[in-house]
Amino acid sequence: MSEKILRINMTDLSCAVEAVPAEWQGLGGRGLTSAIVSKEVPPTCHPLGKHNKLVFAPGLLAGSPAAQSGRLSAGAKSPLTGTIKESNAGGTAAQNLAKLRIKALIIEGMPADDSMFYGIRINKDGARIVEEKELVGKRNYEVIKTLMADIGPKVGVLTIGPVGEMRMVAANISVRDPDGNIRSHGRGGLGAVMGSKKVKYITIDDSDGPGVEIADPERFKAAARAFAKAILEHPVSGEGLPTYGTNVLVNVLNEAGGLPTKNFRYGQFDGHDKISGETMRETIIARGGKPKHGCHAGCIIQCSQVYFDEEGEYVTSGFEYETIWGIGANCCIDDLDVIARADRIMDDIGIDSIESAVIMGVAMEAGIIPFGDGPGLLKLLEEIGQGTPLGRILGNGAAFVGKAYGLTRVPVVKGQGIPAYDPRSVKGIGVTYATSTQGADHTMGYAVATNILQVGGFVDPLKNEGQVELSRNLQIATAAIDTTGLCLFVAFPALDIPETLVAIVDMLNAKFGINLTGNDVTALGKSVLKTEHAFNLAAGFTKADDRLPEFFNEDPCPPHNVTWTMKGEEIDEFWNF
Amino acid sequence: MSEKILRINMTDLSCAVEAVPAEWQGLGGRGLTSAIVSKEVPPTCHPLGKHNKLVFAPGLLAGSPAAQSGRLSAGAKSPLTGTIKESNAGGTAAQNLAKLRIKALIIEGMPADDSMFYGIRINKDGARIVEEKELVGKRNYEVIKTLMADIGPKVGVLTIGPVGEMRMVAANISVRDPDGNIRSHGRGGLGAVMGSKKVKYITIDDSDGPGVEIADPERFKAAARAFAKAILEHPVSGEGLPTYGTNVLVNVLNEAGGLPTKNFRYGQFDGHDKISGETMRETIIARGGKPKHGCHAGCIIQCSQVYFDEEGEYVTSGFEYETIWGIGANCCIDDLDVIARADRIMDDIGIDSIESAVIMGVAMEAGIIPFGDGPGLLKLLEEIGQGTPLGRILGNGAAFVGKAYGLTRVPVVKGQGIPAYDPRSVKGIGVTYATSTQGADHTMGYAVATNILQVGGFVDPLKNEGQVELSRNLQIATAAIDTTGLCLFVAFPALDIPETLVAIVDMLNAKFGINLTGNDVTALGKSVLKTEHAFNLAAGFTKADDRLPEFFNEDPCPPHNVTWTMKGEEIDEFWNF
Repeated sequence: MSEKILRINMTDLSCAVEAVPAEWQGLGGRGLTSAIVSKEVPPTCHPLGKHNKLVFAPGLLAGSPAAQSGRLSAGAKSPLTGTIKESNAGGTAAQNLAKLRIKALIIEGMPADDSMFYGIRINKDGARIVEEKELVGKRNYEVIKTLMADIGPKVGVLTIGPVGEMRMVAANISVRDPDGNIRSHGRGGLGAVMGSKKVKYITIDDSDGPGVEIADPERFKAAARAFAKAILEHPVSGEGLPTYGTNVLVNVLNEAGGLPTKNFRYGQFDGHDKISGETMRETIIARGGKPKHGCHAGCIIQCSQVYFDEEGEYVTSGFEYETIWGIGANCCIDDLDVIARADRIMDDIGIDSIESAVIMGVAMEAGIIPFGDGPGLLKLLEEIGQGTPLGRILGNGAAFVGKAYGLTRVPVVKGQGIPAYDPRSVKGIGVTYATSTQGADHTMGYAVATNILQVGGFVDPLKNEGQVELSRNLQIATAAIDTTGLCLFVAFPALDIPETLVAIVDMLNAKFGINLTGNDVTALGKSVLKTEHAFNLAAGFTKADDRLPEFFNEDPCPPHNVTWTMKGEEIDEFWNF
Repeated sequence: MSEKILRINMTDLSCAVEAVPAEWQGLGGRGLTSAIVSKEVPPTCHPLGKHNKLVFAPGLLAGSPAAQSGRLSAGAKSPLTGTIKESNAGGTAAQNLAKLRIKALIIEGMPADDSMFYGIRINKDGARIVEEKELVGKRNYEVIKTLMADIGPKVGVLTIGPVGEMRMVAANISVRDPDGNIRSHGRGGLGAVMGSKKVKYITIDDSDGPGVEIADPERFKAAARAFAKAILEHPVSGEGLPTYGTNVLVNVLNEAGGLPTKNFRYGQFDGHDKISGETMRETIIARGGKPKHGCHAGCIIQCSQVYFDEEGEYVTSGFEYETIWGIGANCCIDDLDVIARADRIMDDIGIDSIESAVIMGVAMEAGIIPFGDGPGLLKLLEEIGQGTPLGRILGNGAAFVGKAYGLTRVPVVKGQGIPAYDPRSVKGIGVTYATSTQGADHTMGYAVATNILQVGGFVDPLKNEGQVELSRNLQIATAAIDTTGLCLFVAFPALDIPETLVAIVDMLNAKFGINLTGNDVTALGKSVLKTEHAFNLAAGFTKADDRLPEFFNEDPCPPHNVTWTMKGEEIDEFWNF
């Protein structure tokens, strides 16, 4: 039984199974979502109209026993940025899709009747579109619980909360994690695209499915073992992340002067100790939570965690550095419990936590609530979930809030909020924000690794020299990794331990019975980036969009008191490959 | 005493008088504002930041005895569209500036302290920047009344209302008319630029000023007489407009099936008779208002009017077709009194009435209030003036409302609301909306003249053939007319009566002692357009922006049941000149 494309048409409510065209057979994950969006979506179409398509694709290694291989890519034209978008997440859906041999799920069209919502139910027998009433307006935790009770505890679930239903463009898509909690396709507003298609949820039940085929199981096993060894050997993926989660970065970035504070005014936050990974770990252990946790089966990094409140009750999980930075330092809130509560609400109503953090910083800049007002922030999140006028201003992203209030200190690129690393004091990540095909997104080319963590060598974070090349190399590598379906954190060992890339290539070759080399993987990454860039150019983007907001050029960032000084021509060198 | 540039720096609160550079000496009005913006404003700057500049320039013929010569151009990078912008208005300011021999007023920089507002007071001795407290937050009628009492009844006043103070990007700039009422630099959100500079008002007192110099008064007088004769001879400028105002068009466009109704669903409105120019004229006469009125001294068309309520009290003036179409047919409100009340509020709070009309149509589409709800609409306008969260959604333009509510039926081009002529059934104006350097704006190339009114020949409004050429010729001519400072309605005689253009050229030659030909005027128009287009390209605009929203391609417009079928390549032929 070969792999297939599952195509769902929401205009006529039909489902079709299609053979995988030859050109897509070597692709998966981001490589495949971007290829499909690029081929089938008119670049200038309205992102919430019937011509946009929402595509899900597990990576090339999804469903295999490879460590870290459970990431699912979601792609579309982003209603937040107007660019092509891929957002990947852990959870259970990628592996379930792979085990049903569904290489991509394409959702297209939209129902003429805007008042209806639907669920898409996928299992070994195919897909069904069912009218949904009960779950409409419900939040994600309840949706997931209801669907697990209905279909089974291991069902893969993709769902949108009220923010996505209301088509606000900071909406995310939630994915059920192995415990029935939530991971997210966070960035780019893909939840609004799902809402515009009137799809409330998608379930993927792989019971009695065909499972994943591996051409050379012995060779695969050996490669997977070498791969896992490299991951566990590297200090970041083998020690830092498992111990403190991604929140290990609060103290690191504060020390480096690159922790954006008070809506990107400063690079250090007085309250950093109170919200650090170290404090979080102690708090979790003291309350009986889980300091280590995997977002999908086969994860050996375990950077996730389960956070309890003072009474020992579950609050949230997958509590990431970027969320904690954003609701914390960026909004001057030094209370982990408030930040955890915010994380819970954001997961539940279905809004990207990074965009929300930037939104709240800009809302405080506008004077809607004062900086540091934790209870006020939680109330604003609830307003987003309710869709009040203020909620709609906030739920449509940081750029939108800035425009609503006529502000200039609005940290966004291509309409997407800048995440947790100040580009003035971590200049490599600034290049990534500027040039990424998807707006400001640290995961597209994580130059923080080499600028700050000294992984893959060292490029001085305060100097312009070498940053474009660094970002370019990382963006190419990332596009390739995102295509395999591996968690991006495998890049840490890959940058320092040569055996890692060899093992990844070996796993791909063993799985498909092919003979790729490391150069093929690089070529793949380049090709994915070029496909995405071509889409954006056709959508009307130009070099003028590959720039940071002007306040970064003018307002020095303490403690280094540096501005962003990279010239346009230097940035534009990025695309010379 | 030669003409000069007055430069106001709001960063250090300084005023400077500069000689006019040679390259700007032959320019005025739009030609000059676009030249200055193009030379001095970085195209990618934040339009509400310190690098944008707000420029006012009277036309080349301003202050002279030429009929229709009192239009003032305002220019900047538009915060609504992101393009270069020129918006011209009648009123008293252009003539006062010209009589002080101020060729352009440039306002640049912005105060570091955001809490302060200022007034700029200009007279024969120069300019002063004064701190303003009393008038902050006040509406335009009160501001104008206060300043007239303070400085004198003939003072020229430019002012922003609360919408501009709050930097909402549908804000306009009001100009005092000869009766102390209001005309507007409506489109493009220039009121928000003035608000960002923290300028509440500008007064221009020309008492004891040097007045305007005319090189050859006799020749000028003869040309001005021929010019006036042509205006009065043409059926549109000599009869239609003076009798019914611009609102003569409601019945004309309804008949043609091009009157956008219910947020651009239909091309005809059942209630058209109740809001027509014919009904308006009867109502005004019955209540003792003025059916004819000039927006500036020397106007012989007199398309303006003064509208009274049932008790014979003043409600509004300058009550235009586009406003009546928009609050009327587009929002399904068939009550002229409600529309007049809306016009009054819009003038008073300082918001563009065309953008507001499109805003309200989209707000009704979103279900904020139902179509046809007049009292609800007036309440929403008040919310804009108060700056509530809903008010801020609305006050930032139709595109913004559409995004807030995730809608696709949002009639805008480059972020600016499409005015009162459906591009599906008046295809020439569709080309103007798509290609204009300033977003959707009928005044940039009024193809309705030739498509519907059969002025300047006839091009079938329902066919694509000839529309690009028509729009191109009109846009070139308009750019030239806007540079002279003449009211655009002189285009009607100019298109049909050959003596008109000869007279305009003669007036220019007589005023400046030069020897232009008709070809020079055409070359000037082309040059203005190219300057503006170059700015937009540098700002990041591409051909992809020269398109109408996709719903026009797909939803047929009754009664002709036509869609917009112009291909991209056809539209792009526009710039081949």
